[in-house]
Amino acid sequence: MRRFVIGRGRNFLNRSHQQNLLSSSSSHCQSRFLSSTSVIDSPSSSSMAPTSSPAITVDSLNPKVLKCEYAVRGEIVSIAQRLQQELQTNPGSHSFDEILYCNIGNPQSLGQQPITFFREVLALCDHPSILDRSETQGLFSADSIERAWQILDQIPGRATGAYSHSQGIKGLRDTIAAGIEARDGFPADPNDIFLTDGASPAVHMMMQLLIRSENDGILCPIPQYPLYSASIALHGGTLVPYYLDEATGWGLETSEVKKQLEAAKAKGITVRALVVINPGNPTGQVLAEENQRAIVEFCKKEGLVLLADEVYQENVYVPEKKFHSFKKVSRSMGYGEKDISLVSFQSVSKGYYGECGKRGGYMEVTGFSAEVREQIYKVASVNLCSNISGQILASLVMSPPKVGDESYESYCAERDGILSSLARRAKTLEDAFNSLEGITCNKAEGAMYLFPRIQLPEKAIKAAEAEKTVPDAFYCRRLLNATGIVLVPGSGFGQVPGTWHFRCTILPQEDKIPAIVTRLTDFHKNFMDKFRN
Amino acid sequence: MRRFVIGRGRNFLNRSHQQNLLSSSSSHCQSRFLSSTSVIDSPSSSSMAPTSSPAITVDSLNPKVLKCEYAVRGEIVSIAQRLQQELQTNPGSHSFDEILYCNIGNPQSLGQQPITFFREVLALCDHPSILDRSETQGLFSADSIERAWQILDQIPGRATGAYSHSQGIKGLRDTIAAGIEARDGFPADPNDIFLTDGASPAVHMMMQLLIRSENDGILCPIPQYPLYSASIALHGGTLVPYYLDEATGWGLETSEVKKQLEAAKAKGITVRALVVINPGNPTGQVLAEENQRAIVEFCKKEGLVLLADEVYQENVYVPEKKFHSFKKVSRSMGYGEKDISLVSFQSVSKGYYGECGKRGGYMEVTGFSAEVREQIYKVASVNLCSNISGQILASLVMSPPKVGDESYESYCAERDGILSSLARRAKTLEDAFNSLEGITCNKAEGAMYLFPRIQLPEKAIKAAEAEKTVPDAFYCRRLLNATGIVLVPGSGFGQVPGTWHFRCTILPQEDKIPAIVTRLTDFHKNFMDKFRN
Repeated sequence: MRRFVIGRGRNFLNRSHQQNLLSSSSSHCQSRFLSSTSVIDSPSSSSMAPTSSPAITVDSLNPKVLKCEYAVRGEIVSIAQRLQQELQTNPGSHSFDEILYCNIGNPQSLGQQPITFFREVLALCDHPSILDRSETQGLFSADSIERAWQILDQIPGRATGAYSHSQGIKGLRDTIAAGIEARDGFPADPNDIFLTDGASPAVHMMMQLLIRSENDGILCPIPQYPLYSASIALHGGTLVPYYLDEATGWGLETSEVKKQLEAAKAKGITVRALVVINPGNPTGQVLAEENQRAIVEFCKKEGLVLLADEVYQENVYVPEKKFHSFKKVSRSMGYGEKDISLVSFQSVSKGYYGECGKRGGYMEVTGFSAEVREQIYKVASVNLCSNISGQILASLVMSPPKVGDESYESYCAERDGILSSLARRAKTLEDAFNSLEGITCNKAEGAMYLFPRIQLPEKAIKAAEAEKTVPDAFYCRRLLNATGIVLVPGSGFGQVPGTWHFRCTILPQEDKIPAIVTRLTDFHKNFMDKFRN
Repeated sequence: MRRFVIGRGRNFLNRSHQQNLLSSSSSHCQSRFLSSTSVIDSPSSSSMAPTSSPAITVDSLNPKVLKCEYAVRGEIVSIAQRLQQELQTNPGSHSFDEILYCNIGNPQSLGQQPITFFREVLALCDHPSILDRSETQGLFSADSIERAWQILDQIPGRATGAYSHSQGIKGLRDTIAAGIEARDGFPADPNDIFLTDGASPAVHMMMQLLIRSENDGILCPIPQYPLYSASIALHGGTLVPYYLDEATGWGLETSEVKKQLEAAKAKGITVRALVVINPGNPTGQVLAEENQRAIVEFCKKEGLVLLADEVYQENVYVPEKKFHSFKKVSRSMGYGEKDISLVSFQSVSKGYYGECGKRGGYMEVTGFSAEVREQIYKVASVNLCSNISGQILASLVMSPPKVGDESYESYCAERDGILSSLARRAKTLEDAFNSLEGITCNKAEGAMYLFPRIQLPEKAIKAAEAEKTVPDAFYCRRLLNATGIVLVPGSGFGQVPGTWHFRCTILPQEDKIPAIVTRLTDFHKNFMDKFRN
């Protein structure tokens, strides 16, 4: 019987405690919720002497925060940042000359260039007073100038510095809805779009709405992108894991999901939603349409909200697979608003655009009652609105240049150059991992990651235990110290107990890939020589 | 004995229920927190037949979300949006030709122009490839080009499209820390700065860290900016109100704070922090330094975190008052890291810049242990980073052009023009309110708001009750329907029971102020004629 394990040997930023994110019934989560009123009204006059309260200690913080983990920026990254500083202040202090961040889907940090058209429009919207100047014609493409005017006309008073409607600027939502319609072939409603600062705040918003207590569960794939486990922990819910099947290319079996749902119910958990990440993170698979239909059918039957993480919708690298949105799939099955509650998350951070720093994205929310929608709107309102540049960019990625536009050819060349290079990098790294002793690696059909499995020798596992470290973190830390390559241990994403993995992005620029492969290979050989049984 | 009341007669977006944000022990907050583990591990095999779960109903949502309110974008604004649509589709359908949004501190939505230098730098950072082009010299000032280069050089790989460090780009934090030092005359550490998407997410972050349950309280001024009540509700804590004294210009008496703290303690509440908004929102007062010292002393003595909302630090309109940061005040008292836990919030949305749509801001976090800091860092990491344009803008507002820079004179003219105009508008509106029957209005020494008190006639209060509406909302709704002017009822901010107020921004452009005064005056006369006792 397998047991779900996610965690590391050392806590975030080296603070050592043995707490495990999801597999232990942590003492930290035994928060008391007393029945007293949450209101203090007028004081009864009191003559108590003031006593000095204790200062804020870490143990007095919200236990949900203490419980939360986020491996993608965890301990390994902290070590990497330290090494980078050492290399800066003391070049030659290590056997490598740079840190290669393969830990996070952050393409532009590794040299990917932004799409020119997108940046032209953003710059013009940031400083509209140059739109009428003659010099601008020479600096910007005609269609970027035209698009900037269109966007400004969609903003009340052309005020790009004003808070917008809580869901985002209506005209931009119109553009996005039109883009979704063009993608799916089914109608999309701009009132269903909530523009957000990237996909993460949108995920938090849905978790905040759905989770009432530890007794509410969210079905998540394992391995999963740790935003989900972090967000569920922060909101005090329970992550109900379902395992992707590594043997079938990280297949998603509804029978497995069903089994886990029933087990959760048997424990008194009310399962509220199912998270699907397609294309997969960290697993890189692209779901087959037939599989998606089964998931839709399952959510409909069980009354689960389907939370569809579709931020990698443009990142598909194999000709035999195609991205289909869950909304398209459910509509093509004849299911409408009344049949299934569905949230689709999209981001400007991924795709070929990779504009992580812009913090743009949206969620498309369908199949909820007007009353529930009001609550979503209210939560969005408390933060006023997402940033306008991110909103504009979200509209651009859903409505890029078209045939006949001045930028069209250069846009296509930039986009296709990035995507075809990513496909080549994915293949090269996949082959490299598969050539290493004890490592097997599924294909990255999509997204930005490989998630190879590593058969760690018993001696390495013992050495890790001696260091009070999870074995995969032990491997990744040694790799980092020896090569400057930053990976994320599989334990940060969850994995079948007794198996070990790591996540590696396919994002380093192509000219760096050969050196990475060489360094990885050399390190791995040495590691195995040292620890081989 | 006065009783704390905050709320409205109708729920957000017209959904009617009688729940009251802080004064009732709402049935919604009786969520059960069972003691079961928060972990689901492997299922015991189950043969339960699948039962279709109910769809998501509003009553099945997180009760903390249901409880939360945010009046600044509440019912009145929804009516205003409807009226605006009616005016667009059917001009002449109302007795006014535009909606005047005086509900929210959103200057650029009402015609305030952005500071040119800031926008030039943002545009150049958005599209750095034009920095080397000759046309750019003609379009942009020399110092904006130079500043853009400086900023790009502070960003690893000059990648403005990459996720940054979770706290924000280090070089920008250096600039901000230098700006704080220049402002305060005391050192500031870039490692204490957390860049955020406006001040709101920073406030949420601190509430998330500090609040464990309903038994944790946060001292907030009443009236307060409803972000605080909303955030405390969302995080499940208890707002412990302390009343500002309207009779002394919304004075903050530590004796009142002390009394409320003791009353809260007597009810078993652990008070964790004290919120101070200076300059005040919605109340517009600027605290005297002596008063600030008393607050610092109080927080130190009681072991409270001081959460200092200082987003209006540039908005001071009276010569006899000056903004002093709480950090400066505490350092000038000789209190350092070990003496007081202090968080200062700043935003690019306010000041003379008013760049609400950019969602930039920061918090400066001092006086916490390394372990607590790690937890703050972790929560920041889960959302990866704030948007880079907002980060850049936060560095610019803390480091504007200096004497000798090409933009310096035009920058000063823009800044001073905005601030002196705001001062004139504040005075004109204050005088107008004070000239109306039954209305008294304190001076707006700072910030962007007036918070006049209105003596509603008994007949009006009865009429409101008959409509199941809070009397101040009754007044504001009638005003909106008659004039197109959008105010926020005082009940959204909290007020001494039996008193009624509304918040009015000072942000409409000066050429519109006379018409607003006329419309307000006419409406008010008619209202009083109709309802006078």
